[in-house]
Order: sequence, then structure tokens, then C-alpha cells
Amino acid sequence: MWSVDPRTGKRREQVAVEAGADDVDRAVRAAHATVGALADRTARARLLRTAAGLLDGARTEVVAAADAETALGEARLTGELARTTAQLRYFADIVDEAAFLDVRISRPDPSTTPPTPDLRRMKIPLGVVAVYAASNFPLAFSVPGGDTASALAAGCPVVVKAHPCHPATSELVAGLLRRAAAEAGLPEDVVVLLHGFRAGVDLVRHPLVAAAGFTGSVRGGRALFDAAAARPVPIPFHGELGSLNPVVITEAAAAARPEEIGAGLAASMTMGQGQFCTKPGFVLAPEGPGGDRFVAALADALKGVEPGVMLAPRMREHFLTATAEGTRTDGVDAPVRPAGAEPLTVTPGFLTIAADTLLDGDPHGLLQETFGPVTVVARYAKRDQVSAVLALVPGNLTATLQTADADDPDAPSLLAELTPLAGRILVDAWPTGVAVADAQHHGGPYPATTSPFTSVGGTAIERWLRPISYQSTPQPLLPPELRDANPLGVPQR
Amino acid sequence: MWSVDPRTGKRREQVAVEAGADDVDRAVRAAHATVGALADRTARARLLRTAAGLLDGARTEVVAAADAETALGEARLTGELARTTAQLRYFADIVDEAAFLDVRISRPDPSTTPPTPDLRRMKIPLGVVAVYAASNFPLAFSVPGGDTASALAAGCPVVVKAHPCHPATSELVAGLLRRAAAEAGLPEDVVVLLHGFRAGVDLVRHPLVAAAGFTGSVRGGRALFDAAAARPVPIPFHGELGSLNPVVITEAAAAARPEEIGAGLAASMTMGQGQFCTKPGFVLAPEGPGGDRFVAALADALKGVEPGVMLAPRMREHFLTATAEGTRTDGVDAPVRPAGAEPLTVTPGFLTIAADTLLDGDPHGLLQETFGPVTVVARYAKRDQVSAVLALVPGNLTATLQTADADDPDAPSLLAELTPLAGRILVDAWPTGVAVADAQHHGGPYPATTSPFTSVGGTAIERWLRPISYQSTPQPLLPPELRDANPLGVPQR
Repeated sequence: MWSVDPRTGKRREQVAVEAGADDVDRAVRAAHATVGALADRTARARLLRTAAGLLDGARTEVVAAADAETALGEARLTGELARTTAQLRYFADIVDEAAFLDVRISRPDPSTTPPTPDLRRMKIPLGVVAVYAASNFPLAFSVPGGDTASALAAGCPVVVKAHPCHPATSELVAGLLRRAAAEAGLPEDVVVLLHGFRAGVDLVRHPLVAAAGFTGSVRGGRALFDAAAARPVPIPFHGELGSLNPVVITEAAAAARPEEIGAGLAASMTMGQGQFCTKPGFVLAPEGPGGDRFVAALADALKGVEPGVMLAPRMREHFLTATAEGTRTDGVDAPVRPAGAEPLTVTPGFLTIAADTLLDGDPHGLLQETFGPVTVVARYAKRDQVSAVLALVPGNLTATLQTADADDPDAPSLLAELTPLAGRILVDAWPTGVAVADAQHHGGPYPATTSPFTSVGGTAIERWLRPISYQSTPQPLLPPELRDANPLGVPQR
Repeated sequence: MWSVDPRTGKRREQVAVEAGADDVDRAVRAAHATVGALADRTARARLLRTAAGLLDGARTEVVAAADAETALGEARLTGELARTTAQLRYFADIVDEAAFLDVRISRPDPSTTPPTPDLRRMKIPLGVVAVYAASNFPLAFSVPGGDTASALAAGCPVVVKAHPCHPATSELVAGLLRRAAAEAGLPEDVVVLLHGFRAGVDLVRHPLVAAAGFTGSVRGGRALFDAAAARPVPIPFHGELGSLNPVVITEAAAAARPEEIGAGLAASMTMGQGQFCTKPGFVLAPEGPGGDRFVAALADALKGVEPGVMLAPRMREHFLTATAEGTRTDGVDAPVRPAGAEPLTVTPGFLTIAADTLLDGDPHGLLQETFGPVTVVARYAKRDQVSAVLALVPGNLTATLQTADADDPDAPSLLAELTPLAGRILVDAWPTGVAVADAQHHGGPYPATTSPFTSVGGTAIERWLRPISYQSTPQPLLPPELRDANPLGVPQR
């Protein structure tokens, strides 16, 4: 695996070799051997906090490594590292709190049919988790990211398949995580790193892998999902595959604050060179003067954006091809045309089309996610065109409504129509920037995610656990969490 | 579809015709049209309680219909109906309590990276649920059973694929459920009934079906699971497929109370003619005098069991074939041979084998579930043979440990070995009889279930929900459950 400079397209150094079938087997077995050690919740919390400390301590080095491979820039990557270490500490707190064990105790009741015995339920870790790192977040959704943090918090060892966009960064931070394990008194193999496409496929098929977390494309994610489902023993595959993230601007919103919405959209869709999974990629805006002013404001804002480097030359090619393809649809205009600049940069842009044109089919993929700084603005003449177009939109991570105010007459019905389309609904806000919080939900109808779980926020830990009930079990034989004396002080219901 | 008398094998009456593709489409669309009406939680709770009342009121008729098609007997079916109606009322209470909405509110916090906005998360229904009824519980795991009750509680309309063993019972109780809907002020199509194998396959592939619940065989369940995973938009498939339900008897237990364990096992394995998904189908018992006394007690108890009728002549045939096949393994003995009696009955029995024989392979399926009143007793000479054999056992709903007492020296290590194998662990108890309780878990590693969820108990409702977060949404536009004023008084975290 070579580390490549996206600013020049040149190879920087060879970082590792692609793992073969034997390497994958060895990695999974090594990780599996740590299941017993990870059962110690105190050690898990210590591991997560130690890892956060080591990553913060290596900030300069980590940010430089990530910038050299992703061109995301020092400011963004410093923020991403802060988010990543805060997330590790957040999951350490969740481990300490122990509410995720979801302990429930049912006392004996001979009056029910059948009679209720003494039943005590808690959640236990599933086993080795395969994590597939994302291209666009070399830290927060990669080796030390949310999948790894939540899996370790749950008590599951992790085998990470590095993303080929940032192998050197992956090696660097995996080394820090393994050092953190040793410092926390745990085996280093609670985290194992692998490289290579074929290794990723072998990994999801390995009999000792119990679940998988994935962030990436529909094509790659679906192939791994299918492999996970086709195993002799199928396993849960929690994949985040793709999202258009529709935005609807009401008539009243376009009349009341078109410039603010145009500028807000421009900032959100260009953030990180438009390479966020929550980038607003499709906008329904009204025809008429308000909508025209919004389009003009969006154009103005985008014209001022400096050329930027995408994560990889291959992604830049795809961005330029896909946006050129989109303009081939009859009726598409490009007020600001997304373009490639020299040497390996792109400039943002957007396409416009009459909403009813989309009702006749979408031959050029305007209703599909395009990675990079572009969005599609569909202009609607009547309210019912919004409903008709939304019915064609696939599942999403987010859906956004831009209103005039809480009394906007179209807001209630549009919110009701957006709700089935996404896992997070925003009003008068923008979807990029996913807070790590208890009430977060980062997931949504397929292809946004392949399961109804979140990959961000406290409940992400639920993906790596299964319930177990103990019936009529004497107190000394029960796990301490389920005993009446509750020596560990976990929440019991 | 014909209703068949399992006591004679004769057709009783033609109940319905197999649904064609158009019928399935019509059924799903009709159910889908009720999603809006089911959003009213008060109406849902009323529906569940009204259904329970109507079923209780029709007890004589329902029990007679079910007995005519299953031969399970009046006592068992009266108990099953009581369990079913209690379960409907239990889920009505869960709807009222509203804890399943899992409301979480994160207040804005500008100090985090990225900043935390106002985020409010709750769970919403997935949509139409396909329910595949079980052969062995014509009520509690069929049309009015746990899948239907939990799905309706979640706000999901249900299309039930009737089991061919009891089409007339299915029609009768589906009629009562639909009448309950009308009396509760809801559309009757919140529950729609279909018949036919092909209809079951069409159902799981229908684009408007959002999730499925299944109780049945590994073969049928896996085919439907595969179809659910292969859809353009995959859906969650919660299937209960098969379970051996291993039992381990410690040396000390066999020495201390062999007769009690033998009699207990005989009662559990013959309950409902051995047609329970939790039937103990595999037992590890020590060699030596204690184990011998246990085997003798089991044989004595089984010899006293009257011949019984299985659910269908086809199942009886399979039982006789499979048990005859099992005895073909070298070293297998049958102290009481399972047998067919006239006209269409069977008598229970069990096979014995030396545990280490199983380590050389299992050509005749002794480590696979056999439906009907039979179990396999493997005699172990040394403690480590138990570990070696358990490593070959597939995933289970239950695993049972029979001990001498809480000080039994082998108990802690054996419990630790049984825990990864099952979803419910029992000590000095028997797995048949699954209480409907908050702390119940009826599920387990594949093939016990295809997902880490339970199909019995309060948390079964979690299968039919997905989380959604509202970000920066003005109070009047929020669902009432998420507002600060909390007008519905739901639990908020």
C-alpha cells in the first residue's frame, strides 16, 4: 500500500503490503484472543481515555500525516482529531455509566401464563468487530473513529480495514491505539490493522468476525453487506452507504431570507470539498423571485470559493465525470459549473432543473449522491411537485427544511413528508457537522444505512451487543451486574 | 388451503385459496394505507385490549378450531390462548407507558467539536411488517401472537402469512383482530391474512414491506432471510429458525439428584409432543453411576408417556425418519426408542452415545434439532469432553445447566462456556415455557435467531422501530413527544 499525495498525485512512500488470507486469519484470531481481557469494563474505559490522551499528545504528527494523505488541511484535521478524542472519552463515560448493559430484572410471578420465573437480562459483547474505514474522515470515521470507539466500549476487539487513501495515517494511529491498550493493561491486539481490498472481503467472511461497521460507497458497502448476509452464519452489517440529503425551501422561506439560505447552502455543500456524507446534494427551491434570489446568492457565494484538492485524483476524476454527465439531462443549466483546475484541484458549482423534469425519469443520476462540491437545485412551480419529487428520493441520513419561521404554512406538511426519508430532520439549519451526543441519530433508510442503528452518538454502542437472560440462576452464579446486591452499582430496571 | 385433521390425516374443509401475486400486492397496499391511523398510540392500545377481549370471549370456538387442526388438546390451547391475550394486554401497557419511544434530548452545547445543536431523538414505526406464523403455536406465535402484538404496539400494520397447519384457526382469529380494529376506531386492514407458500415469498419481496418476523424451520427461514437481504432495499428479517437447546448435567448433579433431573427432562422434552422451539434436544450427562441413574429415570418416565398426535402427518413422518437415522450412528443406543403408533400417533424416546464419538463428526445429525419428543444424551467421561462437544453445537435459544447446588465446583466454568451458545441460560430449571416478561430474551446466536433481538417479552417491540433525530426544530413543529412541554407525558431522557 502506497501513501499518495493528493495535491500532486505522486506516491510518497510504501507503507504496508496488502494482507493475504493468512494475514486476515491471524489478525482475527489475535483480536479474538483478547475478548476475555476486554470483559473488564474498567480496563476498557481506561483504554479509551489513554488512547485519547496519546492521540492528543501526538496531534502535530497525526494532523501532518493526515493532511499529507487527504489534503483536508490543518484546521479541519485539528478539529477532527479533537472530535475523535472527545468521542473516545465520551464512550469511556458511557462504559462507566453502564446504562448500555440495559439490565432488566423480572421477579417470579406464578400468576402469569406461563408462570414467570426469576429472569435477569443484560447485554453482552458480540465478539470481534470488523471496521471499514472511510476515505473522508481519516480519524473520526477511520481507525480511531466512532465504530472503533463504540465497539471497544461494548467489549468487542476490532480489526480495522484501513482506507487506501490514508494508509500511513492509519498505521500511525493504530500504533497509538495499541500502545494505549498496553498502557491500560490490555493486550495490544484489541485493535489490529489490515490493508487491502481483498483483505476487506476475507474479513467479513471470517467465522470469528461477529459484526461489521462500514462507512463508504453504495457499491462497496452493498458488496460487503451481501457477503455478510450470505455467510453460513450471517452477521449484522452496519453500513453507511450513501445519502443525497435533500433540502426543501418553502415559498415563504425563499421570500423571507433567500440570501441567507443561499450562503448557508454554499458553506455546507463545500465544507471539506463537498466530501461529507451529509452534504446537501439536492435542493427543492420554488420558482419565482424568491427562488431566483436564492439561486443568485448561491451562485455568488460559490464563485468566491477557492479551488480545493479532493481526497484522491480518482475521486476528482469521478466528480468531474459525474457533474458533466448531470448537465446532459434536458433542461439542466449550470449557473456555476463545477470544474477541474490545475494542478489537481476542483471548483464548486451547482446544477438547476425544473422539478417536473425529474418526474419523467432520472437518466443522468441527478437524484444520486455525487461526492464533491456540487448540488442540484430543482425548481418547483407548485407544492405538489415537491411531494412528487420527494417520492423518488432514496433513503437519507438527513433531510432539511428551510422555513420562514415556525408559522410557515407549508412547514408541518413538508416535515411530515421528509420524516420517512431520513434519520435526522433539520429545520433552518444545515446537515454537515454531526454532533456526538446522546440524542444524535446518524443513520437512515437504505441506502443511507443498512440497519436502523446510528454510527454516531451514544446509542452507536447498541450495534455491538446482544441480550442474554439468566433464568432461575443462583445469586453467586449470576454475573455481578445481575445480582440483587449489585456490587458494581450498574443501573438495574 | 385445506384444514386437515392431524388425528386422521383427513381433509376437513377448504378454508381459503392460495394468494397470488396480485393478492399479496393488494394486501400489502391495504395494510400500508393504515400507517397513518396507527400513529395514534391511544387507538393502538385500545386495539390490543379489544382484541384480547374478543379472543377471550370466543375462547370455546378458538380452542376447538385450534385443537381440530393441531391436536394440541384443550388444556394446552386454553393456556396458549390465555398467554396470547395476556400478551396483547401486556403490549397495550407498553404502548401506554411509551418508554419504547426511547426519547432522548441533547441540549445545545457550543463547547463540543462540532458544536452540539438542539437534538431530540425518538423511535418511529418502520412500516408494514410481514409475519410468518409458526406451526407449533397456532395462537401465541401465529396470527394474534407476539410478532403481531409487538408490531401493532410499535405502530406497524401487519400482513400475516398463515401457517398451512392451521388455516381455519388463522381465519377465525384474523377476523377477530380485524373486528377489534373496527371497534377500536381503526381500519380493519391493520391486520391482513394471506395463505400459501408462494405468497410468503412474494410478501418478503414487496417494496412496501419494511420488516419481517418469522418462526419456523432453518430451511424456510433461511430462504426468506436470503430474499430479504437480496432486495434492492434490504429489510430487517427477524427469524427464529432452530435450536438444539443443550443441557449439561454436572458430575455432582448426577450424583445428587439423578431421578429428579431424569423426570424433569422427560416432562420438558415431551411437552406439546416435543414440538417446542425450546425443547431440550441434546444432553451432556456424565458416565458412571449417577449418570446411569439419570438415564434409567429418564427411560422410566418416558415409558409412562401416552402416545400423542403430532401437528401434521408430514411432521410425524419426518420425526420417525430422523430418529431412525440418528440410531444409525456407530455407538448409538436407544434405551427408549421413539416410535410411531397407530393410527397417527408417536411415542417419545431418547438416544444415547459416548460424547467423544461426536468429536469425529456428526453424519446423522445428532447435533441438529429434531422436531418431536426425542432427545440425545451424550455421556462424557471427562470434563474436557464437555468443552469439546459444546464447541460443535450451533447457536441456541437456550442452554441449561443442571447442578448439585450453588457450590457445585463445575458450575462457574460450565456457565461461562454455555453463555456464548445461547440467548437464555437456565440453572436447575427447564427451558420449555417462555414467560412474557420485561427481562425475557427469546433469541440467540444463529440459527436460533437471525438477529440479536427477542421475539418474546417487552423488548420485542424494538424490532419494528427506527430512531429519528430532530435538529434545531422549533417547538411547534416537533412531535409532541419531543417538546419541552411534553403534553403526552412520555418518558424523556
